[in-house]
This record gives sequence, structure tokens and C-alpha cells, in this order.
Amino acid sequence: MTTAEQRVTEAIEARRELISEAIPEELPIKRPERLYEASRYLLDAGGKRLRPTMLFLAAESFADVDPLSVPYREFPDVEGEPIDVMAAGVSVEVIHLFTLIHDDIMDDDDLRRGVPAAHRKYDTETAILAGDTLYSTGFEIMLETGAPADRSVRALDRLASTCTEICEGQALDIDFESRLDVTSAEYDEMIELKTAVLYAASAAIPAILLGADDETVEALYRYGLDVGRAFQIQDDLLDLMAESEDMGKQRGSDLIEGKRTLITTHAREQGVDVDGLVDPEDPTDAEIDDAVATLRESGSIDFARNRAHELIVQGKDRLEVLPDNEARGLLADVADFLVEREY
Amino acid sequence: MTTAEQRVTEAIEARRELISEAIPEELPIKRPERLYEASRYLLDAGGKRLRPTMLFLAAESFADVDPLSVPYREFPDVEGEPIDVMAAGVSVEVIHLFTLIHDDIMDDDDLRRGVPAAHRKYDTETAILAGDTLYSTGFEIMLETGAPADRSVRALDRLASTCTEICEGQALDIDFESRLDVTSAEYDEMIELKTAVLYAASAAIPAILLGADDETVEALYRYGLDVGRAFQIQDDLLDLMAESEDMGKQRGSDLIEGKRTLITTHAREQGVDVDGLVDPEDPTDAEIDDAVATLRESGSIDFARNRAHELIVQGKDRLEVLPDNEARGLLADVADFLVEREY
Repeated sequence: MTTAEQRVTEAIEARRELISEAIPEELPIKRPERLYEASRYLLDAGGKRLRPTMLFLAAESFADVDPLSVPYREFPDVEGEPIDVMAAGVSVEVIHLFTLIHDDIMDDDDLRRGVPAAHRKYDTETAILAGDTLYSTGFEIMLETGAPADRSVRALDRLASTCTEICEGQALDIDFESRLDVTSAEYDEMIELKTAVLYAASAAIPAILLGADDETVEALYRYGLDVGRAFQIQDDLLDLMAESEDMGKQRGSDLIEGKRTLITTHAREQGVDVDGLVDPEDPTDAEIDDAVATLRESGSIDFARNRAHELIVQGKDRLEVLPDNEARGLLADVADFLVEREY
Repeated sequence: MTTAEQRVTEAIEARRELISEAIPEELPIKRPERLYEASRYLLDAGGKRLRPTMLFLAAESFADVDPLSVPYREFPDVEGEPIDVMAAGVSVEVIHLFTLIHDDIMDDDDLRRGVPAAHRKYDTETAILAGDTLYSTGFEIMLETGAPADRSVRALDRLASTCTEICEGQALDIDFESRLDVTSAEYDEMIELKTAVLYAASAAIPAILLGADDETVEALYRYGLDVGRAFQIQDDLLDLMAESEDMGKQRGSDLIEGKRTLITTHAREQGVDVDGLVDPEDPTDAEIDDAVATLRESGSIDFARNRAHELIVQGKDRLEVLPDNEARGLLADVADFLVEREY
């Protein structure tokens, strides 16, 4: 591991612990217990907490404070008034988990984060309802930051429109499965909506809450969009490359389920018969290995990797709007981490 | 029909038309079209729009204006500034529809408002996603009233906590199906959460947005809780009494599905074997007729009817906090209508 890799891994880990401690405070198990247990089940199953980490680092860089030197529950805004950015961090993580639970039902995925998906651990009814509970709870928690009302309204509006866009992205993703002619532009639109907007909201919302000017909010939003798009491309690459046990789900699941990715979209444009690569009824490891080799030969894997790296470079450039400090460096490192991670 | 019945029917009808015109403005069909078509499908299938009607009447009574004399898009607050209470009305209706779509999936109901449920018309995946889209869109629309930020935050907070409570109520409802020992107190808690809180929010939110004092907001909230609970009891009565075609769903569906209601809870306390009344596998009309006769003999139907009427009397008393005007009279009439309706 390089020094930068070690630094960012430690930064993510430290914030992961803080957010994991705050989740039970914001979302206690209460009556009806089964509903709240189901709502907390995947939240407590781990995850890297990248969205809150991005939110905290953006707050620290904007406020120009040393990383982890100021408690997130009482974080100084532009007037020095305390804002609970921890609540905002929990909010975006809770919204993220709602989308995972409902997506797993829609995609009929069995595994998530190395454990059974919520609708497998419980049942579909409970999982729908647990997702719905996280949805409104996420909004409630975002209203508990103590920020002035005008900023709370802007943060809420951003969170709500982000959720609508995530639904639009998921709808496009489902639609694409039954279409052979999905273009790269359509794929780009889909991952921006389905994945990148929540990263963008996570980066922009702390700036809104702390009283930043529009230029800063917009630049952080764009940073989140760029690295979020890169994150999804890397996710699609990992689906092909990583060991199933590292990833917590079936390797090659996108090929098996006929999901469009930048890799398959590119491959099809190179004349590869993408839908014939894997037998969806009885996929074997050897088939998936052969499929990866074919996608490598068509240049599609390198194409996707290069695209992800371009987006990261572009995203990091957006950070120049922030003061030059350690937290800004970590935001750049997080961007790199997202496309270098192996799980 | 009495004069009061005719007056309230006309008041509901006039506002139903206005809200039905506003829905496509707030929620246009846009890309991805299939998602927005599915989101609009049940919204456009009709319904009495009782929650927005209650919201509009509360606004008119609080502002002390003649019913329908001021456009809902530019409704005067305490300082005479224009507030878009139509947006608030669409918001609560959109949130209501999200809960119907997801409830129908969870309860596996085939019919809603006389047409196939959303997951039957489309598919479960699309229906989950359509509900999720209405959920966040409802919040977005509530932020478009033009109210001062502090009031918008309060309205949003109320809407979000209402959604969380609806999920809790639905969780209790599902849990009760597998339990024989549900008490009247538990049933009361369940219907308050599942049904009444959205009526309460619909009555209180216009007062919040228009700048009413806390006492008025609280009284309207309580009015909504009382009449919402009465509404649910009446719904449970209608499930037993009304013709299937009037109701748009199977008569006796609660008995068939083993749902607890105030009627069955009371009957069990009188020693009736409620679960033996109807064969869930092959329910016949004659069985349902016999079941209704048994519930009538045990006094359970009268008990529920009396409870609904008590709640309506109590709810109407809460309205004394409002100016004595025509809109207040209509709010009282709406309360009566909810327990006198036959479909």
C-alpha cells in the first residue's frame, strides 16, 4: 500500500466507526420491533460508509479544520454556529440503504454485503416496509441538523430530488435489461441518476448546511457526480473481476442478469455478442472467465477503466473551489480509492 | 339526501375536480415514461380526494374566507402573502397513493378503486418503484408552496414523521394477522398510525403553512386523528356491508385475509370464533352473509358504529378553535360524511 492509500483507508475507517456508532442513536430499535430490526439489519451489516465519509470530508475541508479535530455533532458553520453534520451523514447512509433494500427485491438478488438480502432474511413485505421506513426516517434525520430553516429546506429539497432521480435511474436500468440497443449516452444517464446523484448530494449537502455560496455547493455537487459515475463503472468492473466472497455477491451477476454496463455497451459496439457470453440459466465459473477474456480482448475493460480514471481526474479538479487543506487532499484520495478498490 | 349531505357532497366534488386538474401539473408524465405512467396510474383512477379536501377546507376556515372564493395556488397567509396550498393538497394525495400502491403489494390485493392494483396492472418491480417515486415527489411538491422556510421545515417534518408512522401502522397490521389476542387498545394504536395520522397531517399542514399558532395546528391535528380513526372503522364496516362493485374490492376481504378490525376484536371478546367464520381458501357470499349476521348478533357491528360516531362528535368539537364560518361547517360535514358514506 502506498502512503496515500494507507491514509485514505485510515480516514474511511475512522469515519466508518463514527457513523456506525451514530446509526443506533438516530434509528433506535423501537416498537414495532420487527420493523425496526428489519430496517437496521443491512445498515448494521457493514459497508464502507463512503457517502457519509465524503460528506464529513467536504464539511472539514469547507470549514478549513483539521480532519477529526471537531466533533461532527457540533460542527461550525460560516457564522460559527453548531451544525449536526453527523445527522446529515446518517441521513444519506439511511437513504442509500433504503435504495439497496428495494433494489434487491426488484432485481431478486440473494446476497448483499455478504449476508442474505433483506427480503431473503425477512420476507418481501417486511423488506418493502423496512425500505419505506428508512426513506421517511432519512428525511426526518436530515431535519435534525440544527441548520437555519432556509438551509434545511435546500438540503431537504436536494435529498428529495435525489431520491426521485435514483428511482428514475433504477427504472432505466430495469428497462435496459430488455433492450439490446442501449447506447453509451443512455448508460451514462442511467448511472448518473441511479448512483452518482447520491454521491453528489453527499458532497453538496454539508456545504448547503454550513452556509457555503452557490459556487462551492455546485462544485462539490459536480465532484460527487464525477466520482459517483466512476464508482459505478468500477462496480461494474468488480462484478466481473472480484472474487464472490470479497464482494458479498455472485461474480458476473450483471452478465447473468443481462444488465447493461459501460463494458457490455462498448463490447457490443465492437461486435461482441454480449448476450451469448453466459447462459443465464446455468452460469459456470469457466463461462464467466471466458466472458471476461472476451471483454478484455475487445478492449472493453480497458475502455471502462480509462473512462473511470478520466472522471476521477475531472472530479478532483472541481475541488479547487475548496481551501487547500488536508481534508481536501483526502477528498481527492477518496476519489482515487473509489476506482482503485478491489471489493 | 339531506341538505347537509348534498352540501358536503358538492364541496367534495368541487375540490376533487380541482385536485384532479392539479395532479398532472405537479406530476407530469416525463422520461422514463413507464415509471411516471405507473406512478400516475392509480392517482388518475379516481378516488374521493378526501385528504386534500380536508386540507383546503381547513385553509379556508382558518383564513376566514368564503369557500372556493380564493384560488388555492395563491392562498393568503396570516400576513396576506400567497401560499400554494394546492401544492400541499397534491402532496398529501401523492403520499396517500404511495401507501396504497405498496400496501396492495404487501397484502397481495388484486383490486383498488375498481381497477387492477398497480402491481397487477404493471408488475411488482414497477409498482415498488412507482411508490418510491411518489414518495419523494410528495416531499418535493410540499416544498413548492412558497411558504417561509421555517413553516416549510415544520410541514416537511410533519409529513416525514407521518410517513414513518404509517409504516409502523402497516407493520402492526401485518403482525396482527398472525395473532389471535389483539386487544382493542392495540387495534386503536394500529389504525391511528396506519390511517388517522395522514388525515391529521392533512388538517394541520395548511395551518402550519399559513402561519397559525400552535394551538390551532394542534386542534386541527386532533380533529384529523379523530375523524381518521372513525374513517378506518367505517372502512372496516363497509368491507362487510357494501356491495363489491361499489367498493372496488372483494366484500369481506378483511375476514378472508384474517385482518383484525374493531368489529372482530369486539366479537372475539364476546366469545365469537372469528377465525372460523369464513373459509379463507374458498369463501362464499353465503358464508360472508352468515358472518355478518353473527357479528351483528354479538353487538360488534353496533359497537363499531357507535365508536365511529363518538369519534366524529369529539373531532367536530376540536373545530371550535377556528373562526365560525362556512368552511368550518363543511369540515364538520366532512366528518359526518366519513361515517355516513356507503362506499
